[in-house]
Amino acid sequence: MQVKRGFASDNNAGVHPSVMDALLSANRGHAVAYGDDAYTEAAVRLFRGHFGERAEVFFVFGGTGANVTALAAVTRPHHAVVCAETAHINVDECGAPERFAGCKLAALPTPDGKLRVEQIEPLLAHSGDQHRVQPRVISVSQATELGTVYAVEELRGLAEFARARGMLLHVDGARLANAAAHLGAGFRELTTEAGVDVLSFGGTKNGMMYGEAVVFLEPRLAEDFKFVRKQAAQLPSKMRFVAAQFTALLAEDLWLRNAEHSNRMARALAAGLARVPRIKITRPVESNAVFALMPREAVARVRERFFFYVWDEQTSEVRLMCSFDTTEDDVRELVNVIAEAVGGNEGKDEV
Amino acid sequence: MQVKRGFASDNNAGVHPSVMDALLSANRGHAVAYGDDAYTEAAVRLFRGHFGERAEVFFVFGGTGANVTALAAVTRPHHAVVCAETAHINVDECGAPERFAGCKLAALPTPDGKLRVEQIEPLLAHSGDQHRVQPRVISVSQATELGTVYAVEELRGLAEFARARGMLLHVDGARLANAAAHLGAGFRELTTEAGVDVLSFGGTKNGMMYGEAVVFLEPRLAEDFKFVRKQAAQLPSKMRFVAAQFTALLAEDLWLRNAEHSNRMARALAAGLARVPRIKITRPVESNAVFALMPREAVARVRERFFFYVWDEQTSEVRLMCSFDTTEDDVRELVNVIAEAVGGNEGKDEV
Amino acid sequence: MQVKRGFASDNNAGVHPSVMDALLSANRGHAVAYGDDAYTEAAVRLFRGHFGERAEVFFVFGGTGANVTALAAVTRPHHAVVCAETAHINVDECGAPERFAGCKLAALPTPDGKLRVEQIEPLLAHSGDQHRVQPRVISVSQATELGTVYAVEELRGLAEFARARGMLLHVDGARLANAAAHLGAGFRELTTEAGVDVLSFGGTKNGMMYGEAVVFLEPRLAEDFKFVRKQAAQLPSKMRFVAAQFTALLAEDLWLRNAEHSNRMARALAAGLARVPRIKITRPVESNAVFALMPREAVARVRERFFFYVWDEQTSEVRLMCSFDTTEDDVRELVNVIAEAVGGNEGKDEV
Amino acid sequence: MQVKRGFASDNNAGVHPSVMDALLSANRGHAVAYGDDAYTEAAVRLFRGHFGERAEVFFVFGGTGANVTALAAVTRPHHAVVCAETAHINVDECGAPERFAGCKLAALPTPDGKLRVEQIEPLLAHSGDQHRVQPRVISVSQATELGTVYAVEELRGLAEFARARGMLLHVDGARLANAAAHLGAGFRELTTEAGVDVLSFGGTKNGMMYGEAVVFLEPRLAEDFKFVRKQAAQLPSKMRFVAAQFTALLAEDLWLRNAEHSNRMARALAAGLARVPRIKITRPVESNAVFALMPREAVARVRERFFFYVWDEQTSEVRLMCSFDTTEDDVRELVNVIAEAVGGNEGKDEV
Repeated sequence: MQVKRGFASDNNAGVHPSVMDALLSANRGHAVAYGDDAYTEAAVRLFRGHFGERAEVFFVFGGTGANVTALAAVTRPHHAVVCAETAHINVDECGAPERFAGCKLAALPTPDGKLRVEQIEPLLAHSGDQHRVQPRVISVSQATELGTVYAVEELRGLAEFARARGMLLHVDGARLANAAAHLGAGFRELTTEAGVDVLSFGGTKNGMMYGEAVVFLEPRLAEDFKFVRKQAAQLPSKMRFVAAQFTALLAEDLWLRNAEHSNRMARALAAGLARVPRIKITRPVESNAVFALMPREAVARVRERFFFYVWDEQTSEVRLMCSFDTTEDDVRELVNVIAEAVGGNEGKDEV
Repeated sequence: MQVKRGFASDNNAGVHPSVMDALLSANRGHAVAYGDDAYTEAAVRLFRGHFGERAEVFFVFGGTGANVTALAAVTRPHHAVVCAETAHINVDECGAPERFAGCKLAALPTPDGKLRVEQIEPLLAHSGDQHRVQPRVISVSQATELGTVYAVEELRGLAEFARARGMLLHVDGARLANAAAHLGAGFRELTTEAGVDVLSFGGTKNGMMYGEAVVFLEPRLAEDFKFVRKQAAQLPSKMRFVAAQFTALLAEDLWLRNAEHSNRMARALAAGLARVPRIKITRPVESNAVFALMPREAVARVRERFFFYVWDEQTSEVRLMCSFDTTEDDVRELVNVIAEAVGGNEGKDEV
Repeated sequence: MQVKRGFASDNNAGVHPSVMDALLSANRGHAVAYGDDAYTEAAVRLFRGHFGERAEVFFVFGGTGANVTALAAVTRPHHAVVCAETAHINVDECGAPERFAGCKLAALPTPDGKLRVEQIEPLLAHSGDQHRVQPRVISVSQATELGTVYAVEELRGLAEFARARGMLLHVDGARLANAAAHLGAGFRELTTEAGVDVLSFGGTKNGMMYGEAVVFLEPRLAEDFKFVRKQAAQLPSKMRFVAAQFTALLAEDLWLRNAEHSNRMARALAAGLARVPRIKITRPVESNAVFALMPREAVARVRERFFFYVWDEQTSEVRLMCSFDTTEDDVRELVNVIAEAVGGNEGKDEV
Repeated sequence: MQVKRGFASDNNAGVHPSVMDALLSANRGHAVAYGDDAYTEAAVRLFRGHFGERAEVFFVFGGTGANVTALAAVTRPHHAVVCAETAHINVDECGAPERFAGCKLAALPTPDGKLRVEQIEPLLAHSGDQHRVQPRVISVSQATELGTVYAVEELRGLAEFARARGMLLHVDGARLANAAAHLGAGFRELTTEAGVDVLSFGGTKNGMMYGEAVVFLEPRLAEDFKFVRKQAAQLPSKMRFVAAQFTALLAEDLWLRNAEHSNRMARALAAGLARVPRIKITRPVESNAVFALMPREAVARVRERFFFYVWDEQTSEVRLMCSFDTTEDDVRELVNVIAEAVGGNEGKDEV
């Protein structure tokens, strides 16, 4: 079967060997289902080490599941969730937040996938007006879907704004590890200490097989969450296998090594492409994604060798994602293939 | 960590070694996410071998996810889903069907977990009355939550009844393999040929780590299902790992061996308990569950050694579930522990 | 057009002349929409006179709207609402509570439409179990759909039970006036003082054209209600016309006179029918409904003259509803027609 | 109580005397509830006269109710409804469409409240992509919330676009009468013949007390609507009173006279304001709304005399709505008050 590595998404990668080992080790005897087991207990302890002792941690199956349950837990259906137009919850979840939480998303345009306080303020003009949905949550992606990263200061600013207006801050952290690696910051600094209320914490895109976590930094928000999770069909029965994977990621620094590696590969790719004529890097490379304008005819040719997505058909902007298993050879080869496809050899030797 | 085997549930067991091998084998290189990969293609082919070429097959994360997406796909919110009072969708899913599909469940009492046509007929008295929900789906569990199994004839009768009244037949097949093993019937005979429209097909309780399938035997019902699945947050990104597990189960007869084994262990357990005084088997043992009345004080004592659930606190009826990895020694030991706990030695040596 | 009076339902009656006068009087000039007007203020004042100064009062379009918004306001989707199997919310609202609130209804069988504390206790056995919906509200109909009435003591018992278990008591008071008339009690005694938390208060069945009220006796539960009401499409724009009708009902004792009248007509009807052979009154006549067994062939014949519903096709039990405009002549004629239809003349002259 | 007339909204007006007469006339004897009565039959006949014999007509309580039930009837929750950012369904319904239909709204910016085909095309780029909501309905307001009106050609263009892509066209016709009056067109030309599939038809803003209609021009879409209506709590029990009001509007030309009058008053108001210095009319006056920039300090002063809404706090743009009962004196007085408030007498005498 298929063994090629591509640049389509970090979820096209497989499972990190250490995570796989953890799955094997956890496969001994019986364990009580649904999270009442020692593996889950151990993994939660690790989360609390990273996020603080007050954190309430719940494992779920997937990233969309993490987002919709986190949002449903802290909203009522007449609330609105403020997010960037590019947010995964707005674009890539087939309306799951609206359906499950009942809420409206107030999606704001941004140049770089990052929300600013100034954009949100006007939405509050109708606070208390019974005809209008009531903004309740600010949801940011960290790193964003455009590969950019909020500085800790920016998150803190959003959190303070939220708190001052009775709102909450949610972080879609499907790639939080990549953001942390970029910033050289720990999870606690990026979330608990920055004032984040609730977090979707990604595992699958950073080397796990499946499994994400919903982490409540503000524990009172977690009160009913176990019911929300079950009602959303996001309660894994053989929970120990999700827990064991997270333990593999978090017990030592595997989460960081994976994220640093994929970030580094993205920077290398961007550096290589910078020397290819007719290719223009379009966004700051702050995590594991590289966005670039690529001539349409080149796209087709490169795709014969590597799978990746066209982000914007209008402008022929492509997205190239690196993952924990992307190699320097992969990057070099991709740059060469692109260089050939656009008809320029200039960048070739130097990569 | 915990290595003991218990009788609490078939999802307290781990992963069958062959399934684990399949996970390891699938972990090579990249594969397109969300099901557009060769592993998924291969697994779907196997399902069609079992269920017929017209079957439309979709993998999801879990059993509740399979049920709610299957039901949501074939209903509108003003419909009702007819089921047994004991049905998993009615009792154990925290209202997920009502929340996601919007539907009402019309839950009917049964002596043995099995619906009868005669019970359903009266619900149709208000067909077309705008004040009443409209029965649209009959949902049966096969095997049932009480360990009983519908005969093929019974399923056919329900399917014919449904078809004649513009209704559909859904099977919650979390333990369909156990039912098939009991009946000595193939999946096709039990579903497609019996007139079942849509099936939740279980993997987790029969040796998988996670993953279930929604199988539309009537393919036109599957038209929008990919959207329903995504909107329900039941679309695994690294789909190949669900597919590989199903391939391990279905390519040869692992599904059957696992099910036959757990059924056999249940029968052995029942046979052993039949000789223990003050223990009364309460239900026919047709799959991998044994239900028995056990004196309250014995329950506590046995639980010090084996984990299991009290099914009915009023009557002190317990449920003892066997799984693919239950051994004859486990069974023997449990019988002995129970025999001791109830204060009788009679049953001991003979088991 | 149709001018006959029937016994099908109290909502087949028209509008009481005093209510109509109030509509005419309110039709002067402009009034701010959506409830920010003097008519609404005045009506709310009257409600507080009846229910206590802490009551929070909201007008909605209809009875189903009142029930679903009241329930949605005080539940989360993983909660359950405990009610009688015969409850309007369970039988006659086409699943609106499930769809709008997301909740499951736990519908219990009763001999007389009235819930007992003893029935509810077992539902709490799974409190805190994440697989089960969590009972949160007890919803009773007062008067019930079977024409019976809870004694104040019974309500108090349910309220105390609810409070002791962190639950709430909701009253579907579509016919609360009839219950109050029967008991000779004021609204406050029946609700606020009995420990009711939230009430659907009926207007339409007691002489109004349209309009019901949701009354929170426990005001903190009303916090977000204005948003719930609007999101449920239950916010009348020309609110003054709902308010004016309630003012007509409540300013003096029109609500009571209407209810006493329809109750009295029901008692007269029951008394008349008691003397008709082959007719058997089946339920205590405590409000404006009379239930009776009527031979099937008689049903058809009586229906040629009066419209009414067969409550139970199996037993041929019929429901005969009186309303504020039912006359003694109507009752006498109905009894005669029934007496003729069953072939007995005995009852005729004496009615 | 309040008798002043203002310019806040056409639903601040009362009930047209002929509509009130119809309510009085309908208040005779009993009529079967829920629409099975002669009044409803007669009103539906009138609708079919206006919209064509195939039209399926359903009465509901209110405008938001009409919109959410119409949209829910023709969508599944993974669909998207394309609308203008200014649409009532997007801005003024507290998220009711998202909650009830489960759908996402795809709200597009427009200069004038009117959608263009060219804007919608790009939304279809992801047709069939399981991660994205699937555009299914184009919803336009006629007249729009900005007082503009779609030409018949424009509607036809949208309908053709929709049909060619498997989409449907919904019209929020809360002010369809005003649009028809402006265009000099009949309802049929504006809807059925233009290719509209489903319509929310407004009564309340054109002289009724309450009540709107959902009209399916494409009858097969109405198949399950009676259940959708009931489940949405939008089924009036004393239906005859909604029907009688519509009969009053539609039997002769009251709907048109009312709409023409309010449109004429708006034009007169715009003409008057055009001569007032520092007031700038901002939108074409095509129905009964006038939008104008008004200096902030003037707003406060004018509001002491007339109630109206500031549409845009940033620019101090106000909305002035005329209704069926606005008089030439009202208009003249408002212009004078505004002229005084802005400190200019120029416009005064000439109005």
